[in-house]
Amino acid sequence: MRVDSSLGLCFIGFGNVGQGLARILVRKERELAERWGFAFRTVAVVTRTRGAAVSRDGEGLSLAELLARVERGEPVGNEHISPVEAALLPQTDIVLDVTPTNLITGEPGLSLTRAALGSGRSVVSSNKGPVSLALAELKELARARGAHYRFEGSVMSGTPSLNLALESLAGCDVREVQGIVNGTTNYILTRMEEGFEYADALREAQEKGYAEADPAGDVDGWDAAVKAQILAAAVLGFPLPLDAVERTGIAAISRADVEAAAKRGKRIKLLAKVARTPDGVAASVAPAEIPLTHPLASVGGATNALTFTTDTLRDVTIIGPGAGREETGQALLSDMLAIAAAERNSARFSIKAG
Amino acid sequence: MRVDSSLGLCFIGFGNVGQGLARILVRKERELAERWGFAFRTVAVVTRTRGAAVSRDGEGLSLAELLARVERGEPVGNEHISPVEAALLPQTDIVLDVTPTNLITGEPGLSLTRAALGSGRSVVSSNKGPVSLALAELKELARARGAHYRFEGSVMSGTPSLNLALESLAGCDVREVQGIVNGTTNYILTRMEEGFEYADALREAQEKGYAEADPAGDVDGWDAAVKAQILAAAVLGFPLPLDAVERTGIAAISRADVEAAAKRGKRIKLLAKVARTPDGVAASVAPAEIPLTHPLASVGGATNALTFTTDTLRDVTIIGPGAGREETGQALLSDMLAIAAAERNSARFSIKAG
Repeated sequence: MRVDSSLGLCFIGFGNVGQGLARILVRKERELAERWGFAFRTVAVVTRTRGAAVSRDGEGLSLAELLARVERGEPVGNEHISPVEAALLPQTDIVLDVTPTNLITGEPGLSLTRAALGSGRSVVSSNKGPVSLALAELKELARARGAHYRFEGSVMSGTPSLNLALESLAGCDVREVQGIVNGTTNYILTRMEEGFEYADALREAQEKGYAEADPAGDVDGWDAAVKAQILAAAVLGFPLPLDAVERTGIAAISRADVEAAAKRGKRIKLLAKVARTPDGVAASVAPAEIPLTHPLASVGGATNALTFTTDTLRDVTIIGPGAGREETGQALLSDMLAIAAAERNSARFSIKAG
Repeated sequence: MRVDSSLGLCFIGFGNVGQGLARILVRKERELAERWGFAFRTVAVVTRTRGAAVSRDGEGLSLAELLARVERGEPVGNEHISPVEAALLPQTDIVLDVTPTNLITGEPGLSLTRAALGSGRSVVSSNKGPVSLALAELKELARARGAHYRFEGSVMSGTPSLNLALESLAGCDVREVQGIVNGTTNYILTRMEEGFEYADALREAQEKGYAEADPAGDVDGWDAAVKAQILAAAVLGFPLPLDAVERTGIAAISRADVEAAAKRGKRIKLLAKVARTPDGVAASVAPAEIPLTHPLASVGGATNALTFTTDTLRDVTIIGPGAGREETGQALLSDMLAIAAAERNSARFSIKAG
């Protein structure tokens, strides 16, 4: 039997982030209901390589059981159902797009997000692809159908960045955003300050699993460029194609450069920056020397940070983790709680009005 | 004629913060309506020494005109009306408590807030007194009457601190909060690092208007202690009496102490700290040596910062202005926009449901 006030969740993808979120939901289920008024049922979990599971009776799947199956190397289930079909199940209220980012096609996330929002279902995502390629379209679709599209996890994992700018700083005019949004390159630069050569620091980052075997996405600045693009579109309101972000990576930086900067009282950081201009917005990713007295200079290792330059508050800086399973799961959770709070306000009003 | 969807504002107090908010509202009126869906009318402005003005026709007062009157040294108006009477005018939707903080009685803010919330009107406040003395009671009153009570401006002015912890970090378990929440003492300590003796740095802070003629509220740590108390109650959920906050000020710190810390690679900061304990919560204000590599060490002058230690995200730090007319006005504005967004969700639902 369906619990009336609970929200039906549909996971599309169940890799690092999906499992991270599932672990949080299992651990906090009671606290989420009692403290945050958030009750959920898991309607379906659809994966690319681990099968699919669907709750046909409306009771909801056990996330603890699905996590245990994945741990044992078993598929989550044997259902034959596509991501879009699962998203459109009648009991789905929120679709969790935790599929891998594809910056060229946006798939499978983009079609999924279009279908879900088009049906009036909300989408919570950590997938940078659809945001990068189609934010304006998806926002308009959500608005028109009375659904929510939230993607806090696409920048700085669960450290509030988009929701900070759009909600906590509501009313402020954000004119510029700059910061450190790629943990891998920041880790490499931090190790170079500690005496490593670039190649050795990169190798270590690869061994620790921070950097991919092909590190270009990080060290050439692509990942930071997409995040700059998302900040330009979501915070400054100016969508840009990805190739409009000027981009220089860190591969040309030597230990000697890092040491020379240190002698000048500075640190080299890979800075992503978006700023309003008279014509729109300028976006760039490039190494920059930051004075040690600046808050961004103290951001070491895999930590991320963003400084929002505003009209009434001048600079507001947020520093926190930039990646991680549960860290990104927390981003998805905070977005779901915001949706639940909005729906609760609706329900409260409907009771008063009724 | 009343514009149906606009919110009626009642200013109680029209000093630095009230005027700061009024200036923002005048400057941004159109942007607030277009971008944030926030339309307002000013129902009344009641002051202690500058008279009172009430819009009897429902059109709303001109804030630009009231600011001009104050500028010319004139009263805002000649109405005879008490703060509570103004708060309870039929057209008041949101009461802005920008009266001065009284930590002993909480008045006039406390009675005003009780009356407004008790009547189902929302209260947005920068006044630390009522929050310090009666948060649990006021929250429950708001909940029972379907009203909102928000007070972002009581800590770190418009830099998101309470709303960051309670909304952007929703779902996180915040276990500890520590940081620099008093700009005056941080300014004095920063000047001492630059070579000033304590007495000279204090005199300069007084000349610049940062410190009061009687500086005890800042330098003895009372202001920081109240903010610790607000963080304990609002973020950790444990109300404490003010005298339960262990408190050491900065008056005993010499330039020699500051220099000795610098030789150890550290900076002395007045740290407010609240942390969960097995029995409840521990709260303190005391000078502490911070390593230069810590984000809080880079926070100089009148800037404030807070680090939230959480379960899923570990440390998240926010840095921004801690005081100022428009900076605190921005806090009140963001709280009003949150209320407007909640009410809009209600209205949206009622249309769909209707």
